[in-house]
Amino acid sequence: MTKSRLEAFSDGVLAIIITIMVLELKVPHEVSIQALLDIYHVFVSYVFSFVFVGIYWGNHHHLLHTVHHVTPKIIWANMGLLFFLSLIPFTTAWMGENEFEGLTVALYSLNLLFCAVAFYILQTVIMAHHSHGTALITALKKQEKKGMLSLLLYALAIAGAFFYPVLSGIFILITVVIWIIPDKNIERALRED
Amino acid sequence: MTKSRLEAFSDGVLAIIITIMVLELKVPHEVSIQALLDIYHVFVSYVFSFVFVGIYWGNHHHLLHTVHHVTPKIIWANMGLLFFLSLIPFTTAWMGENEFEGLTVALYSLNLLFCAVAFYILQTVIMAHHSHGTALITALKKQEKKGMLSLLLYALAIAGAFFYPVLSGIFILITVVIWIIPDKNIERALRED
Amino acid sequence: MTKSRLEAFSDGVLAIIITIMVLELKVPHEVSIQALLDIYHVFVSYVFSFVFVGIYWGNHHHLLHTVHHVTPKIIWANMGLLFFLSLIPFTTAWMGENEFEGLTVALYSLNLLFCAVAFYILQTVIMAHHSHGTALITALKKQEKKGMLSLLLYALAIAGAFFYPVLSGIFILITVVIWIIPDKNIERALRED
Amino acid sequence: MTKSRLEAFSDGVLAIIITIMVLELKVPHEVSIQALLDIYHVFVSYVFSFVFVGIYWGNHHHLLHTVHHVTPKIIWANMGLLFFLSLIPFTTAWMGENEFEGLTVALYSLNLLFCAVAFYILQTVIMAHHSHGTALITALKKQEKKGMLSLLLYALAIAGAFFYPVLSGIFILITVVIWIIPDKNIERALRED
Repeated sequence: MTKSRLEAFSDGVLAIIITIMVLELKVPHEVSIQALLDIYHVFVSYVFSFVFVGIYWGNHHHLLHTVHHVTPKIIWANMGLLFFLSLIPFTTAWMGENEFEGLTVALYSLNLLFCAVAFYILQTVIMAHHSHGTALITALKKQEKKGMLSLLLYALAIAGAFFYPVLSGIFILITVVIWIIPDKNIERALRED
Repeated sequence: MTKSRLEAFSDGVLAIIITIMVLELKVPHEVSIQALLDIYHVFVSYVFSFVFVGIYWGNHHHLLHTVHHVTPKIIWANMGLLFFLSLIPFTTAWMGENEFEGLTVALYSLNLLFCAVAFYILQTVIMAHHSHGTALITALKKQEKKGMLSLLLYALAIAGAFFYPVLSGIFILITVVIWIIPDKNIERALRED
Repeated sequence: MTKSRLEAFSDGVLAIIITIMVLELKVPHEVSIQALLDIYHVFVSYVFSFVFVGIYWGNHHHLLHTVHHVTPKIIWANMGLLFFLSLIPFTTAWMGENEFEGLTVALYSLNLLFCAVAFYILQTVIMAHHSHGTALITALKKQEKKGMLSLLLYALAIAGAFFYPVLSGIFILITVVIWIIPDKNIERALRED
Repeated sequence: MTKSRLEAFSDGVLAIIITIMVLELKVPHEVSIQALLDIYHVFVSYVFSFVFVGIYWGNHHHLLHTVHHVTPKIIWANMGLLFFLSLIPFTTAWMGENEFEGLTVALYSLNLLFCAVAFYILQTVIMAHHSHGTALITALKKQEKKGMLSLLLYALAIAGAFFYPVLSGIFILITVVIWIIPDKNIERALRED
């Protein structure tokens, strides 16, 4: 049983999630610079979520690279990740339309937290099959610290949203930055393969 | 004639079905916990349908694994399955928006019944080509009993919806559970391949 | 230059076209059998278009099977076909929402006519590259008569729509029937490959 | 690390972008030729954007053909291109609904300019990996002049939009024409491969 359909299905779902979010960028009826500035919060939310889904696509790509045999457990752990990612267009739109009000930022951060937990579960399920590690597996295991740090940052973002939503924005931005910087270990491992 | 395009097209349709359902999770205009609780029925419907489409994707995956030669009959039986699955976003939304009213639960269950019948037809068409069975074919044939049980459960869910919709929910939940538990025979057969 | 991306892109577009049409099946707010019957025209239009896009997917599948070398001409002829197919959700929705009024049926038939012409052009561009024919190419050439007959039926459907829209429905139904019946020549040619 | 998933994900996103734009072709409630003529601007905008996304798909296809090793830089440069392309349904709809008013044409042209810059960056990142060139790489480098000319034409279209939007239309049309004409060098290079 090959993993190509699992990848194709996941790529399809991720491509749709990342693209239908633009449907929430409601076209303003008025023609003015002001009308564009009025959807500033929606646009910023879109950018954040686009980058997050992009990061998940890249990490998913690396993780599935190590899979040789697709088991039902992997299929369902993958479905779990896709489920929480599929909620991102919803939480993004709520946050954007309500101009980053505390509760909406908390829900958005909670969504990101659930995605991170689902990714952690998928990683654990996949890694359980590997008795000895290739360079890529070792590199992915090192990356788990980054995953743990992200969980903490999302938790802080949820808590912070009830006091200063801008604080949550900073925590989320830090998470984006630590993931967008290419991981030297993984790059090296991929070259060695 | 390879089956890769049949798989790619089916994966595309299934990925879109599972993802556009989230567009029915209408973003509440108000910012409050209550506003989120108000879409509870829509959310639960979404979760159910997400899991069902996920189950179909997995079963479709296994079934097409046994196909060597794509015939027009297989193409049309597959189109039939995709057609009934494509109605799920519609019946899901009607049921969710109307808070599980009897008639909407009956239509949803009817939709699931038609999907199951369409899957049964696809399976029959594909199996007719196999004079002798591999381990996977034998395992899939054993699984047909589960398919029959599901048909019965969907029929009970339709009937029950007119009296106690919550009963239908239980029947549907049982179907989800019997399909979500990995099939030992199929797992063994896939390992043997 | 392989044709796999051309197939993947076309499969993606066709999968989205066939699936987003269900978004036009607007969920009725009322819960009653009558509310479902009220969208009868929209549902019938959806079924017709689903079958048409399915037929195009099958024919496209066979046609691209004969391509060895993707040229810019093939890419643009293919884009032309995808463009006219992409209008089907629009013409389907207009026809369904207006309960098969003459003008809407005429536009729908015109859309199908343009799709058929675009397919004919794609076929001609692809066939121009084949100096000698395989069994599949010969079978596809024989099928061109069916294409010509379809063009005539669509033209009759357009004309008929201004007098008796039900007549157009019959012409369109005949087209569906002649394409849905598997082509013996193609089946034989695919087996021989 | 293969490039197949990068292609599959990009194909998915491009297929969705090109297809969801048709959702902006709002179905007129009235049945009359006039009702169709009223959405003339929306339709023309759709045609332009369909062709542009088609051109990007073709160029992306050729460019990724030269990639052997997918690096994080390539992934992010590709994400950047997909991001600006994903905004096209939004800017297209704003322009179409407002009947080519100056500001909307300027934003549309700006969107095209950003897409062109993002494509240029992706091309630069990919080309940096090639110390010596195949025929296709040489042909793509020659094509960079066309890219530069497009940047100029988009800039002129932005400026022109504030005075005579029709002038912008002409500049955009010229860009379409210079890209839609097949590049002889690339065709030759692909044949040589």
